[in-house]
Amino acid sequence: MPAYKVPQREMRFLMNEVLDYPAHYAGLAQGSEATPDVVEAIVQECAKLCEEVVAPLYQSGDEQGCQFNAGEVTTPQGFREAYDAFVAGGWQGLSHPVEYGGQGLPISLGLIKQEMLGTANWPFSMYPGLSLGAMNTILMHGDEAQKQTYLVPLTEGRWAGTMCLTEPQCGTDLGQVKTTATPQDDGSYRLNGTKIFISSGEHDLTENIIHIVLARLPDAPKGTRGISLFIVPKFTVNADGSLGERNPVSCGALEKKMGIKASSTCVMNFDGAEGYLIGEPNKGLECMFTFMNSARIGTAIQGVGSAERAYQGALAYAKERRSMRALSGTKEREQIADSLHHHGDVRRMLLTQKVIAEGGRALLYEAAQKADFMIEGLLAGDMRTYEAWDDKLGFITPILKGCLTELGLESANIGMQVFGGHGYIREHGMEQIVRDARISTLYEGTTGIQGLDLLGRKVLLLTQGKAVRQYTRDMLKVALPLVKQPRLRRHALTVLKLAAQWNWLTVRIALKARKEREVVSTACHDFLMYSGYAALAFIWLKMAAKAAERLEQGGEQSADFYRTKLASADFYFERLLPRGKAHAQSMLKNAQSLMSTPIEHFAFD
Amino acid sequence: MPAYKVPQREMRFLMNEVLDYPAHYAGLAQGSEATPDVVEAIVQECAKLCEEVVAPLYQSGDEQGCQFNAGEVTTPQGFREAYDAFVAGGWQGLSHPVEYGGQGLPISLGLIKQEMLGTANWPFSMYPGLSLGAMNTILMHGDEAQKQTYLVPLTEGRWAGTMCLTEPQCGTDLGQVKTTATPQDDGSYRLNGTKIFISSGEHDLTENIIHIVLARLPDAPKGTRGISLFIVPKFTVNADGSLGERNPVSCGALEKKMGIKASSTCVMNFDGAEGYLIGEPNKGLECMFTFMNSARIGTAIQGVGSAERAYQGALAYAKERRSMRALSGTKEREQIADSLHHHGDVRRMLLTQKVIAEGGRALLYEAAQKADFMIEGLLAGDMRTYEAWDDKLGFITPILKGCLTELGLESANIGMQVFGGHGYIREHGMEQIVRDARISTLYEGTTGIQGLDLLGRKVLLLTQGKAVRQYTRDMLKVALPLVKQPRLRRHALTVLKLAAQWNWLTVRIALKARKEREVVSTACHDFLMYSGYAALAFIWLKMAAKAAERLEQGGEQSADFYRTKLASADFYFERLLPRGKAHAQSMLKNAQSLMSTPIEHFAFD
Repeated sequence: MPAYKVPQREMRFLMNEVLDYPAHYAGLAQGSEATPDVVEAIVQECAKLCEEVVAPLYQSGDEQGCQFNAGEVTTPQGFREAYDAFVAGGWQGLSHPVEYGGQGLPISLGLIKQEMLGTANWPFSMYPGLSLGAMNTILMHGDEAQKQTYLVPLTEGRWAGTMCLTEPQCGTDLGQVKTTATPQDDGSYRLNGTKIFISSGEHDLTENIIHIVLARLPDAPKGTRGISLFIVPKFTVNADGSLGERNPVSCGALEKKMGIKASSTCVMNFDGAEGYLIGEPNKGLECMFTFMNSARIGTAIQGVGSAERAYQGALAYAKERRSMRALSGTKEREQIADSLHHHGDVRRMLLTQKVIAEGGRALLYEAAQKADFMIEGLLAGDMRTYEAWDDKLGFITPILKGCLTELGLESANIGMQVFGGHGYIREHGMEQIVRDARISTLYEGTTGIQGLDLLGRKVLLLTQGKAVRQYTRDMLKVALPLVKQPRLRRHALTVLKLAAQWNWLTVRIALKARKEREVVSTACHDFLMYSGYAALAFIWLKMAAKAAERLEQGGEQSADFYRTKLASADFYFERLLPRGKAHAQSMLKNAQSLMSTPIEHFAFD
Repeated sequence: MPAYKVPQREMRFLMNEVLDYPAHYAGLAQGSEATPDVVEAIVQECAKLCEEVVAPLYQSGDEQGCQFNAGEVTTPQGFREAYDAFVAGGWQGLSHPVEYGGQGLPISLGLIKQEMLGTANWPFSMYPGLSLGAMNTILMHGDEAQKQTYLVPLTEGRWAGTMCLTEPQCGTDLGQVKTTATPQDDGSYRLNGTKIFISSGEHDLTENIIHIVLARLPDAPKGTRGISLFIVPKFTVNADGSLGERNPVSCGALEKKMGIKASSTCVMNFDGAEGYLIGEPNKGLECMFTFMNSARIGTAIQGVGSAERAYQGALAYAKERRSMRALSGTKEREQIADSLHHHGDVRRMLLTQKVIAEGGRALLYEAAQKADFMIEGLLAGDMRTYEAWDDKLGFITPILKGCLTELGLESANIGMQVFGGHGYIREHGMEQIVRDARISTLYEGTTGIQGLDLLGRKVLLLTQGKAVRQYTRDMLKVALPLVKQPRLRRHALTVLKLAAQWNWLTVRIALKARKEREVVSTACHDFLMYSGYAALAFIWLKMAAKAAERLEQGGEQSADFYRTKLASADFYFERLLPRGKAHAQSMLKNAQSLMSTPIEHFAFD
């Protein structure tokens, strides 16, 4: 596998040209420090760390995996040193408040950092990634003492965190949670129960681990309204901040997984572990959902990372490997055969990866700006602003999480495919990308859950279609003037049609769902994927428009870059977007052919 | 993972109802022994072996893998005993001539046997599967002495075989083969070179292994016209058939792979190994291509097997696991949550697997009948009949290999998806199906190669579109009368439209390719997948028609089966077939957006 190279030119195109991050940061309270030169320095420093320290551990981490021995977990060689370097650089608290040990920069920069780190080595990035979940929960719902005690060392990266939600009997359906929390006289709780699939539940990177745990109080109502949220530290913390006793929360086993083997996935046993309530009793699930959007966008990053990493691998191989002659005639006569990249179908594969990686990244960076506004509202205590932006983010989040992870997995598989049989051999590293990417459509809500969240909740229930109307209004606004530009006319017209079709589909499904409620569940996957292709079309139009504008302005500098961007947009519209039509057609069918057959007739003896 | 159950009702529906195997066999010379009760007994016996002996070794085989030690390969526990049982049952020679130790039954029965064996345990099935390749090559191109010496023990299963084609520098492009064969005074040859990716190259299942090897004679022309075919036994064979000396052909290493870990994939070193020419000098590649269609159909079986195995796993889990409530209202009030199968999106996933497995199997069984006619011509020495049927098979082969392996992989991934996070954990066995299925789109010609073979060779070059015209003529013939039947009218009309569209697309691409040759390579993937969805539509129409006919005939026996078949056909036409439109739209685009960008502009610093 080739070394990972952070695609800085792509990132700058998005940040400085398409999305104008400098202007965006200038208008943000937390953006005052994020001047262009600071941002540039951060990107370069982070890229250096990711390329030189973190990425080289990707393949060896998979080979070694995490080791489990008598309750202790050992991470692969080099992980501790890499984590220490990460902490020393202050990367963990990049976009968390200065008062709790962070650097107070916008969350969008934090997401861009996560993208680089996750593309370099996704399993490694999960350790600090899970800590972010714990940090955000305590920041939002913890009291001041909890913030001082737990949030500061987490933000500094000295301690790590986890999110303990899933139990053997339930993942999606958290109303089934059984773990109990029994109140003690001193105001603390004793937690008992078993959690599974706990990423970073135990490891050797930090001296303490702070678990955020969903559990039930003794008198709690049944179902989702009876779940509370607790802090359970691996070591209790003394008043002076030093570590106290080992708390009876322990790792019972490591799961044996298809991939992300360097990330510890633990069965966690709570045997009367001391815990402290965060937020109000029985409001635990609501608290969890506060940061659901950013957690899911964090997972969407894995889609883009998989696509990018697999693209870099496949591109290098397509230049190096030779096979057959191009259909349009020999290209490299002096060689025994032409390079793979001369073959049309190999180019189709490479370009599919390219437009997924670049389009997906652009959607993420755009969503990250919305997250900045959301956080700005939150930190200012302006809940109306917070909620308005959280809603906007809430619409695009399942699209990003659902579609970008599906497309990232496709792209990872294409990476193997370009390698032919060699892609199946571990040493080339391409199959690892597929195995690692495969989790992304499962955790943080499966693709099906994203589809239901998008269509059932965000579009129909919460906004009666308004979310689509708002998003498509932006599409009209951007695409309409571009119709006059010959180079962009075709794509602009397509985006205009998509905007109309997306609304029309939403109305049609809403009407059908009134008669046949199950249509929402039978259509949601197609609606989700359709939405993803439409959103990608919109962002590719924006990128193409910026590239065309730059070319218009003239100058040979970067002209090749902009011309390639326009050709990539053509490829997206011609070769990937047509899939959206298939989804549009499928989603409008009745639920009948899905729902009518009794389950016992799905197979006959 | 649930135990594998051979879907005998499905098989009987295809063999006895849709495709009328009894009549087919009655008209075949080799079919005289294949009376309905013999066929029934064979299916039941083979099912028993597969379910009780072979399938239980699937997961443990993956966990243990093959072990390599000082040139020797040890297969996982139980593989030898299972192989012995397979041999004792006479299964290896089921459809090979009686005079060489076989049972002389039609090749279609051999394919159905391979389907059961491969679905039970694909890596295990590769050992006898590779032997089939060697057997077919010797049967077709070997002289009588070679047949007596090598073919008989291979057919009896006492020995195993391999196909040694790939070398480190070339897989698809066999013109680059470097292995040399030096003539000796006694008429034999000494082979020197290295072959990679040799399935079953070394193992402990049989006392001898017969390698079929592509190599170059000293005076051979360059490229594909200078390659000859050799038999190289692991142990040379004495005149009396007893084993002689250990030949210097040895396994240098086992490849570490993503999956099929119980199948040994060897680097084979030929260090002056004794070999014997098969067929004429420099005609080796032509000889290899004789059985290319059956080898590729053998690989297409893996697609159906992956789909079936993953479907059985997902279906069982969807009945057992509970999560949330159905959108249309609570279904199991007494339970804490509804079973997964009550959710529309879960049904969408299950039915996608179901129509892939059942439709793919039907296409295979139909192709198998063509293979019967081809073999009948071959064995009778009637080369015109042989070639006519080989051509028909040649058209459908890349469609089966290309599309059914792609769809089988999709179905395997869906199997994981239904399991949610648990799908990612090894013990459930679903991720193994994905890892094992992943090779199927790579070996025996990648999907891209199948696309080029279909569009470039079979459709445009060899038949100027006639292959499509012939296939679609059958579609018209079958669909036209069905338009009158209310229950089938909609699907029959769709098939009529597809037949017209498929021809129209072929003509359009042929015209475009005259101006822009590279269109064949940029369109071939979409043409392949379109063809797959069209062929599946046709076979689903046939199955639906038979089911409707049976229901019409009345009687409650199997009525549920036929009703389910009709609902599954509805699902295929409504939810999967629309993808064909996306492929139709993409394939007609110019090559421009793929071919115009110089490779050095695919990434910028």
